[in-house]
Amino acid sequence: MIRVGINGYGTIGKRVADAVAAQPDMTVAGVAKTSPNFEATQARKRGFDLYTAVEDRADQFPAAGIETAGPVDDLIADSDVVVDATPSGVGAENRSRYAAHDTPAIYQGGEDASVADVSFNARANFEAAADADHVRVVSCNTTGLSRLLAPLREQYGIEKVRATLVRRGGDPGQTDRGPINDILPDPITIPSHHGPDVNTIFPDLDIDTLGMKVPATLMHMHSINVTLERDPDAADVRDVLAGQSRIMLLDDDLGIDGTGPLKEYAQDMGRPRGDLWENCLWGESVTMDGRDFYCFQAIHQESDVVPENVDAVRAIAGDADAAESIATTNDALGI
Amino acid sequence: MIRVGINGYGTIGKRVADAVAAQPDMTVAGVAKTSPNFEATQARKRGFDLYTAVEDRADQFPAAGIETAGPVDDLIADSDVVVDATPSGVGAENRSRYAAHDTPAIYQGGEDASVADVSFNARANFEAAADADHVRVVSCNTTGLSRLLAPLREQYGIEKVRATLVRRGGDPGQTDRGPINDILPDPITIPSHHGPDVNTIFPDLDIDTLGMKVPATLMHMHSINVTLERDPDAADVRDVLAGQSRIMLLDDDLGIDGTGPLKEYAQDMGRPRGDLWENCLWGESVTMDGRDFYCFQAIHQESDVVPENVDAVRAIAGDADAAESIATTNDALGI
Repeated sequence: MIRVGINGYGTIGKRVADAVAAQPDMTVAGVAKTSPNFEATQARKRGFDLYTAVEDRADQFPAAGIETAGPVDDLIADSDVVVDATPSGVGAENRSRYAAHDTPAIYQGGEDASVADVSFNARANFEAAADADHVRVVSCNTTGLSRLLAPLREQYGIEKVRATLVRRGGDPGQTDRGPINDILPDPITIPSHHGPDVNTIFPDLDIDTLGMKVPATLMHMHSINVTLERDPDAADVRDVLAGQSRIMLLDDDLGIDGTGPLKEYAQDMGRPRGDLWENCLWGESVTMDGRDFYCFQAIHQESDVVPENVDAVRAIAGDADAAESIATTNDALGI
Repeated sequence: MIRVGINGYGTIGKRVADAVAAQPDMTVAGVAKTSPNFEATQARKRGFDLYTAVEDRADQFPAAGIETAGPVDDLIADSDVVVDATPSGVGAENRSRYAAHDTPAIYQGGEDASVADVSFNARANFEAAADADHVRVVSCNTTGLSRLLAPLREQYGIEKVRATLVRRGGDPGQTDRGPINDILPDPITIPSHHGPDVNTIFPDLDIDTLGMKVPATLMHMHSINVTLERDPDAADVRDVLAGQSRIMLLDDDLGIDGTGPLKEYAQDMGRPRGDLWENCLWGESVTMDGRDFYCFQAIHQESDVVPENVDAVRAIAGDADAAESIATTNDALGI
């Protein structure tokens, strides 16, 4: 069993902990948190050993009646791999700590690519993480783009990608985020950071991305154009995409016209926290105009990187190949 | 003086009436309305003769204490040109009425292109309306696209246009519109109607458009890609765009990061109703990658077609050419 420590138990960390716990070849060594809020209570209720991430706040946990297992360094020492799910920028600060314990670490996409030896997407470059001690799972949007572009590239070749990412202003739990009733070019300058970030996965890909921010919290929405090297029928492309395990191709007759019904669908399927781990791609939107491919896909910012973190653990500490790891992860989660 | 009747006194009609009244060579023959709401009261306060658009509701006006001048047919007979600013689809129903009075008519972009002899954008095809009896001013989004594409086409040639239109869900006054907290591909199928609508202005242009709808009311936002036939510097393109009278190139130092501050800016400039008649294009967003041009522009759905309607009146009933008409309209409005 691979012992996985999870440092940071917020939006991503708590989901990764549950996903790791569901794997047949992994166990949660423990989770670390900075402060004793409702998530800390729930971590204990789930049976996870809870470590304190910040020394001078450690006392707050017993004061709040929450049992702790020790400082985060004990967790790092006791883990085969640590998943760092701390806020953007904190992962880079933690790097030396993981190195000191000689514990391989996985970082999130909010960190700069330079934090790690390799940026990771299971579908695109699983093998690259095999010998790495520091691996960065790319962000939710970059993950969504990589999953879509990998099969298009393999099947048809890609001349150029142009994508507009219409991003949710904040997550449902982030009560201090905006905008309200506005549409922001974000950033105003072009390209947004997403294109260069995709290049950490596909170094030679020609891609331009534009970002916006809107008053919504549920999911991001991508408007995608890919100029292919060949001109397949839209039906062929749709079949290729439908064959990808982490692309949920939405059938026309589902009656899902936006991210609200999508989340409702996830809840009705019994998905934990209503999570959508896959790219949600509208089948009806798959269009070819000459060599130009178009589609719309929605990306659940809180959860699409979760199976990627699990695969990254296996890439570092297991002996499965990409196909085996993805299949195991999917099977355990119910993808 | 060109006598202009305005049938429909809602979002567009009331603005066109004010814009016509401001022109040195035009007068408002009257405005027609279906029901006596707050806009009817304001029309009378502005001194416009108010005609009743629907016969069996004509009694409602005197009952509400609002003086009327007669049925809409009297207004049509008394006008040199009628601007039809009725809701989408009603313009087509009114067509035979205008023809019966032999009064040339201008329709809005919500009507099918087949309602008119010609679809119109002042910058792109002013002359086409000279001999037409039925002219359709294209929609707010198509107007915004046409104003941008006309100079790019003239200066650099256009190989292909790909645009994502992130549209406001409804106007500020439309309390029954959505979405709330959602991002909709709208339509899910590609292209949206905007591409073909641009082709009513530029018949041979290769353009693909994708539409979305978001929970905002102030303006639309366009994410634009144009593959040019040449590869000018971004600074050159920016200069060309800055030279267009109906493109407001937003300087980097204005500190305007979205549609909210844009509307605030319009109000501070003393614009009537906070209107933004021009394309609002972020200068910082003007980017060239090889022959690929990119930019963000915001379009005020309630007002950008207003100067176009005024120019359409002059194209039909006046003897100015495009440059003279646009200059006169702009000067009268303060563009």
